Amino acid sequence: MARILVVTQGGLAQELVRGAHTIAGQSDRLETVSLAWDESPVISERKVAAALEEGIQDGEADQGVLILTDLPGGTPFNVAAKFARPGRVEVLSGVNLAMVVRLCCPGCRERSVGELAAWLEEKGRQSICRYQPGAPVESDPACG
Amino acid sequence: MARILVVTQGGLAQELVRGAHTIAGQSDRLETVSLAWDESPVISERKVAAALEEGIQDGEADQGVLILTDLPGGTPFNVAAKFARPGRVEVLSGVNLAMVVRLCCPGCRERSVGELAAWLEEKGRQSICRYQPGAPVESDPACG
Repeated sequence: MARILVVTQGGLAQELVRGAHTIAGQSDRLETVSLAWDESPVISERKVAAALEEGIQDGEADQGVLILTDLPGGTPFNVAAKFARPGRVEVLSGVNLAMVVRLCCPGCRERSVGELAAWLEEKGRQSICRYQPGAPVESDPACG
Repeated sequence: MARILVVTQGGLAQELVRGAHTIAGQSDRLETVSLAWDESPVISERKVAAALEEGIQDGEADQGVLILTDLPGGTPFNVAAKFARPGRVEVLSGVNLAMVVRLCCPGCRERSVGELAAWLEEKGRQSICRYQPGAPVESDPACG
């Protein structure tokens, strides 16, 4: 399976992964990179580069990397975008808990990083919905 | 302006609001309710009821309340849905940082809670996007 890096400023990445692990069970597939609010983009870039490099050293790079970031156009997104290579290193913005939980499902192991990115973009968008009294709510974070 | 309650399990709500305040400046409009992972839905319901009640006691209830929750079908969403009243208490799932930041913009004060919910659902979905090399990235979290 592709490696998953959740990259945010502050403690958001850790909270998202902690939540996903609590809901879907512990998984070693989810990694976090926390950028300090006041650090320079150069330092942030080094942190992301180091996290990507770790996977290469571990021989895990063959499966590609999916990087989940918080705001479109924010520092984590902009830094991650510098490492983007379609089909190898994919970057998504707007990460929420539903997206991270989805990545814990066993079926994700079968998907390429490009497939994962497209699928997660769609599922993430679907997870943002307004409650309509009487309407059915999709509550199953399984693959699909 | 409508009151905003960010309701999640664990520390996610606090991290989201902390991030939004760091990016968009301190605001007293964003309130958080943190539900414990192991508490019963009855206790969770009491916490949300108490947070809603606080606003009523403060005389703020006239503007309505927008409740942002993490997973569709998760405990925070299900508990919040019990208090939903279209146009008065609106509930959204899939909260991410982009949505919370959006709520800090001054233009939000003019919107009814129903308008806010519909607008934020759309903006939240737009914030989840896959980086495409060379494509423009929406980076302005202003109203619109």
